[in-house]
Amino acid sequence: MKVLITGGAGFLGQRLARQLLARGRLNDGAGRPRAITELVLVDVVPAPGPDDTRVRVVTGDIADGALMRGILDRDTSAVFHLAAIVSSQAEADFELGMRINLDASRLLLEICRELGHRPRVVFTSSVAVYGGELPDLVLDSTARNPQSSYGAQKAIAELLLNDYTRRGMVDGRVLRLPTISVRPGLPNKAASSFASGIIREPLNGVAAVCPVSPDLRLWLLSPRRATEALIAGHELAAETLGANRAVNLPGLSVSVGDMVAALERAAGRAAVARIRYEPDPAVERIVRGWPAAWDASRALELGFEADADFDAIVRAYMEDDLAPGGRVRD
Amino acid sequence: MKVLITGGAGFLGQRLARQLLARGRLNDGAGRPRAITELVLVDVVPAPGPDDTRVRVVTGDIADGALMRGILDRDTSAVFHLAAIVSSQAEADFELGMRINLDASRLLLEICRELGHRPRVVFTSSVAVYGGELPDLVLDSTARNPQSSYGAQKAIAELLLNDYTRRGMVDGRVLRLPTISVRPGLPNKAASSFASGIIREPLNGVAAVCPVSPDLRLWLLSPRRATEALIAGHELAAETLGANRAVNLPGLSVSVGDMVAALERAAGRAAVARIRYEPDPAVERIVRGWPAAWDASRALELGFEADADFDAIVRAYMEDDLAPGGRVRD
Repeated sequence: MKVLITGGAGFLGQRLARQLLARGRLNDGAGRPRAITELVLVDVVPAPGPDDTRVRVVTGDIADGALMRGILDRDTSAVFHLAAIVSSQAEADFELGMRINLDASRLLLEICRELGHRPRVVFTSSVAVYGGELPDLVLDSTARNPQSSYGAQKAIAELLLNDYTRRGMVDGRVLRLPTISVRPGLPNKAASSFASGIIREPLNGVAAVCPVSPDLRLWLLSPRRATEALIAGHELAAETLGANRAVNLPGLSVSVGDMVAALERAAGRAAVARIRYEPDPAVERIVRGWPAAWDASRALELGFEADADFDAIVRAYMEDDLAPGGRVRD
Repeated sequence: MKVLITGGAGFLGQRLARQLLARGRLNDGAGRPRAITELVLVDVVPAPGPDDTRVRVVTGDIADGALMRGILDRDTSAVFHLAAIVSSQAEADFELGMRINLDASRLLLEICRELGHRPRVVFTSSVAVYGGELPDLVLDSTARNPQSSYGAQKAIAELLLNDYTRRGMVDGRVLRLPTISVRPGLPNKAASSFASGIIREPLNGVAAVCPVSPDLRLWLLSPRRATEALIAGHELAAETLGANRAVNLPGLSVSVGDMVAALERAAGRAAVARIRYEPDPAVERIVRGWPAAWDASRALELGFEADADFDAIVRAYMEDDLAPGGRVRD
């Protein structure tokens, strides 16, 4: 069977690709384990890897119907739709966010529907679908009231995926991800980019800017757990999920101050000294609007796992992603 | 100023048009009372009235950009977007529902954005945005979890209107309407069509089919109150509404059995004898999935009003809509 990852050049797409290739198989639309014969990585920039004969790299615009119809076929039983215009960028460029986060998501569902074989579609959503006046603990039954265009577009794509699933056009699964930390690579245009940068940059001997107050609480998940969750979310039987296809994944509720303290425990005071606080009210407004925690009991019952603590997240980054040349302590 | 009503040929559009013309003025985008100089009624069929020099009837497809760009201009300070493909029809014809309920709503918002003068846009949404496992009393904070394509499309349009409003592109207001009863005219393709038919048809001496059980509870609003709510929703100051532009309008929670009892009190046993029960599981499934009541305290604080009781709703229908030739008692 064929597997498609949109956003395949991104850090999560790349990590998922490696895990899928190592695993070698996935359940097909009917829930039967099948060998992965082809793994298509589509993104606006060429996916750098993995180096494997099963991998096919496609570079282009996922809102382009001709491109996408050339990639998806009746053998494509698994789609991981990770591509997105991230929060601050979708706020700055409304058209681009609408085109990728909404139109491309709808196109993907339409093509699956045309093909008619009901592929499993795993779609990543976000804390950003919540906002406004929130309870201390967000529940599955809490209204989505996004306060950013990114959040609105993700909430809309969730509704589409749920309706296409209800109608039997796809077998969709929405995984609402906590903020991912520690994301490897360079800063990006997500409002939450700092949530990785304030750990990653100091560990690599580089200065980091923190645009929010130390008391701000974030709801965090490591790349390791996020990748596991994508695969586990795909493998779940449709009956187990039932009518509600959105799962709020487990996270850790950690303040920025707690994160910095964990950095100090892992890499000393010199690392912490590389963080400069430069308040950015626009970033603070967006991120403070997201839930600092949600009830993940359904996800835990379904077998999804959280990280043990933020120290474990820092360690995982150092094991998985710290470049051999990266320095931890001066 | 110019006022646009989409779905202007429908019973609610027609009633709203009459009320607006009698009133003669509305607040403009800046909240200043202005005379209504033109009232454009657009619909897929020609609006039959009202006969007034201020009325302009446009017949066409509201998903047609050229048509809509020819109607909306910088003098259009008020838009009542009532046009919709109703629930059972949107379930039967997925493309049509998506095109009118989603694409045409988005087009309308885009044109308003292009014009740049931030018109007030009043959008009617529905009980159908709720579904799945619901509390006995739906709250403003309850998740929208639609179980029909109509409900999903309405929920998506709500999210779009909220984001366009947040970004200052329009000054939007979402009024979630209870099921309207007693709607005049002919049966339509709404799953809730019977909620008017079982009262209207017997009052007109015609047989009616009831596809649901007498114990089914509905959340009802009369056309009178719905029309008042549309105007009141438009007139509210933006600051009064704040960031959350969706208002759950007050309704009456009434069982089908209670409705029939009110019919008997108004028109006798012969009228009730015109109702034949013919269960339709598809209709029952859709309607039973909607909330039988919601917390309308925010709407009541904002000045919206519910009907006194279902007897008053029946009387209002008889006063406003019963044809002079319509017979009430044999």
